[in-house]
Amino acid sequence: MTTTVTDWRDHFIAIRSNKIFEMVVISIIIFSALLVGASTYNISPNWLGVMTVLDISVTIFFLIEISIRMAAERRFLNFFKSGWNIFDFLIVTASLIPIDESEMVLLARLLRIFRILRLISFIPELRILMNALATAIPRMGYVVLLMFIIFYIYAAVGSFLFESINSVLWGDLSISLLTLFRIATFEDWTDVMYETMEVYPFSWIYYLTFIFLTAFVFLNMMIGIVLDTMQSEHEKFNREEGIGEAGEVHWIKENSIQMNERMERMEAMLIQVTKQKKG
Amino acid sequence: MTTTVTDWRDHFIAIRSNKIFEMVVISIIIFSALLVGASTYNISPNWLGVMTVLDISVTIFFLIEISIRMAAERRFLNFFKSGWNIFDFLIVTASLIPIDESEMVLLARLLRIFRILRLISFIPELRILMNALATAIPRMGYVVLLMFIIFYIYAAVGSFLFESINSVLWGDLSISLLTLFRIATFEDWTDVMYETMEVYPFSWIYYLTFIFLTAFVFLNMMIGIVLDTMQSEHEKFNREEGIGEAGEVHWIKENSIQMNERMERMEAMLIQVTKQKKG
Amino acid sequence: MTTTVTDWRDHFIAIRSNKIFEMVVISIIIFSALLVGASTYNISPNWLGVMTVLDISVTIFFLIEISIRMAAERRFLNFFKSGWNIFDFLIVTASLIPIDESEMVLLARLLRIFRILRLISFIPELRILMNALATAIPRMGYVVLLMFIIFYIYAAVGSFLFESINSVLWGDLSISLLTLFRIATFEDWTDVMYETMEVYPFSWIYYLTFIFLTAFVFLNMMIGIVLDTMQSEHEKFNREEGIGEAGEVHWIKENSIQMNERMERMEAMLIQVTKQKKG
Amino acid sequence: MTTTVTDWRDHFIAIRSNKIFEMVVISIIIFSALLVGASTYNISPNWLGVMTVLDISVTIFFLIEISIRMAAERRFLNFFKSGWNIFDFLIVTASLIPIDESEMVLLARLLRIFRILRLISFIPELRILMNALATAIPRMGYVVLLMFIIFYIYAAVGSFLFESINSVLWGDLSISLLTLFRIATFEDWTDVMYETMEVYPFSWIYYLTFIFLTAFVFLNMMIGIVLDTMQSEHEKFNREEGIGEAGEVHWIKENSIQMNERMERMEAMLIQVTKQKKG
Repeated sequence: MTTTVTDWRDHFIAIRSNKIFEMVVISIIIFSALLVGASTYNISPNWLGVMTVLDISVTIFFLIEISIRMAAERRFLNFFKSGWNIFDFLIVTASLIPIDESEMVLLARLLRIFRILRLISFIPELRILMNALATAIPRMGYVVLLMFIIFYIYAAVGSFLFESINSVLWGDLSISLLTLFRIATFEDWTDVMYETMEVYPFSWIYYLTFIFLTAFVFLNMMIGIVLDTMQSEHEKFNREEGIGEAGEVHWIKENSIQMNERMERMEAMLIQVTKQKKG
Repeated sequence: MTTTVTDWRDHFIAIRSNKIFEMVVISIIIFSALLVGASTYNISPNWLGVMTVLDISVTIFFLIEISIRMAAERRFLNFFKSGWNIFDFLIVTASLIPIDESEMVLLARLLRIFRILRLISFIPELRILMNALATAIPRMGYVVLLMFIIFYIYAAVGSFLFESINSVLWGDLSISLLTLFRIATFEDWTDVMYETMEVYPFSWIYYLTFIFLTAFVFLNMMIGIVLDTMQSEHEKFNREEGIGEAGEVHWIKENSIQMNERMERMEAMLIQVTKQKKG
Repeated sequence: MTTTVTDWRDHFIAIRSNKIFEMVVISIIIFSALLVGASTYNISPNWLGVMTVLDISVTIFFLIEISIRMAAERRFLNFFKSGWNIFDFLIVTASLIPIDESEMVLLARLLRIFRILRLISFIPELRILMNALATAIPRMGYVVLLMFIIFYIYAAVGSFLFESINSVLWGDLSISLLTLFRIATFEDWTDVMYETMEVYPFSWIYYLTFIFLTAFVFLNMMIGIVLDTMQSEHEKFNREEGIGEAGEVHWIKENSIQMNERMERMEAMLIQVTKQKKG
Repeated sequence: MTTTVTDWRDHFIAIRSNKIFEMVVISIIIFSALLVGASTYNISPNWLGVMTVLDISVTIFFLIEISIRMAAERRFLNFFKSGWNIFDFLIVTASLIPIDESEMVLLARLLRIFRILRLISFIPELRILMNALATAIPRMGYVVLLMFIIFYIYAAVGSFLFESINSVLWGDLSISLLTLFRIATFEDWTDVMYETMEVYPFSWIYYLTFIFLTAFVFLNMMIGIVLDTMQSEHEKFNREEGIGEAGEVHWIKENSIQMNERMERMEAMLIQVTKQKKG
């Protein structure tokens, strides 16, 4: 009996690592994305039925595909050891929420959209890119915290001072934060400023310092990331080359000092030899 | 007979590589561009006739010029081996579409505009620049794909949720994509947001995450390109120098180790010689 | 008696350097920030009382905390030798302004907001970041001066020419400076331009040259900072390594020349020895 | 008589190179700028008289100052050999245009503004900065030309297609160029697009390709400049150090090869010597 299971598993492994199978899955993912896109247009009732059938077919295909990949694992739980597998599993099972019940339709539809994200787990270049983006997040951490402190202080000040002028923009802290984000993107920020300048003529100081601070911190963050990335790239390059140029140069220098000493000794001995010859 | 043909060809080659001829062609290209520019202004009927004559002259000049360059080739088809020649040929022949038929006027006019692009094939610096830009495209490929996936998902979500609020902005997937591109350029994006926030008070999450994601991916793309370009510049520099500093340093280190061994042997022998002398 | 004082001081030092104590202070700072944030919302009178009590508690806690850190110093004035301590002291004492007097309420509230800045003096990473930002300011100095000269000239010209057209935007020098800052952020700058172009059709030259100049200077500033930072990073790296690669390579080259000379001498002597042997 | 002239000249040279004199001139330049700034505000008639007197005083001071600097030159024409001196001379003499004639008032005022530019010729750091900016211009040349070609083609196409829709934005080539510049700064570009999309539903292609092209070329220009600056900085650094690391490393490698050969010869001789000894 176990041999039969192993046979089956070998079949599944063969299917999983098959290039054509991979291509089919990527095509179905793109087709599924187009299906979701098409459903945003006004569609005649005739086509609606076809699309529902197609949608169910896609869902079933994904179920079969993920089952094959699960069955191809030696132990069932190994499948969940890879983050991308868990990601795939969640997206596929989320699609199983029935589309019929009217109140769930919107949620089911939204979940179907995220099936396009499976492309990332199937195209290795995109996976590398995602990992690169993920490693960029921690080094931004404290700058984002500093940025948030600046936003928080300005939002509180804005809320205290300008609430009576325009409660739609400065009603409370969260609304003020949104208004400040808008100002940081330069979106109609002068309208906001001119309004408050009628009551507080010097409130332009508030806006200009805010813009300078956020632009300044942002600029430094960008440069910081560029430098950080360059340095890590450089180190990685050195590590890959197995050497590290600076270290090697240092080694050569140290070695030259020893060579000098040795050659001094050798020259002294040679002088001695030639002298004895003459003597 | 063939000698006469060769004679003629030599004449054409002489014309083609003549600096003055090149200058004349560039001047005519610029003049042709000015002619197209002038035709966008209101012109008195008197001048209209003059301009038509000038336009026909330019077209004829270009025909003669490209014929000379074709005739200067040993074999007629060699001319089409260069991408820039095909580019020139297409632009010149496209101008031959008759300007008289009223319905074709607009198309003929539009095609005339592209004659200014011939400047690129005539000025070597612009050609180098174009090649540099072209090489930058592939390394952007997957980032653009990732960007498109983000846009697609947000467009589908936006279309599902906000279509009932404002069908002009969120009517279907393509309209939503255009609206998102507008938001990515910060163009009146708060108006779009405030409208949907009246129905979904938490829809600011949709906009802020979208802006953060696109800005973040874009920032990383930019840094990626800078790093990529720098690394390739560095390698090119090394290749041009014929060396590669890091490699040379490594060679020197390896060689020093051999030198050490040899000198050790030599010292040993010298010690032996001096000992024997004394003995 | 002095021993008792020393005992107490040791206690305070122990508290100050206690990790848990630090965590408690950071939590209280964040809690105080949330308290300020909460006060921007409409709060029922019941909660208002609670919040006043909490606010007083926070103020008292900060007083005790800063007293402990003062008492932990050997000499009272040492406390003020650190810039961050002065910063902390000012923020804490500023909170002591009574909240009761109606006219002072706004000021007291504003000062309370700045208590969130104490986070910077408590989180080492943020302190490093602030120092990094501070070192970036001087190298921007002259570029900012140049930028200001450009703004000043354009503001004066704008004020002279366009005051009669729209005194709200070009009334005097300071208003013009604000309008130019708005144009530099691309915020509805075409509205400003189209208005003046009705009187001075060539005023687009004014706006386009201004945008080009500011963008150009800004771009160069950014690149300048990147280069400056990279160079200083590079030097720092070299200093940390205790070497400086370029210098070492130079040393090796000079040393090789000396080695060549010595080896020439040695070879000459060896030739002499071998000749004598044969003779 | 000539001795007296030389005496006077020495006096002038002493004045010119005097630090206090320099400070005074800088102060007067700043004061003159403030005077121009002040004249944009509404001023009571009493002060107007004072300002006119001050303005005349400043003009006279500048005349004396530039005369001293001229007189300090050995030969009068040497003064005009420095570009900054010509610049100073033009600005000072331009101020001599009489302010009384009503029609010249505006021009005289405008010329007075440019006196602030004299700051650049007096502060060495600003002069260095200006030179750095000037050297950045040529390397941008061809990219700006390419950018202009893109703008020109899109402006002509826009003018042909959209003139009938909105002649205020697309009336002729120059107006279209201005509209495209506006679109490149993302300023209300969607309003322009939505208007033309009513007639040509696919005109979004026109706008999106334009934004992509300009952004793409601009991005590459920026990176190009960064790389260019970095490379030239690097070379300058090497030249200043008097070495050039890569070249030195290469020298060391070549030298090592020669050293190897020599040592091989030496070892061979030593082996011979030791053998003879034993024999």
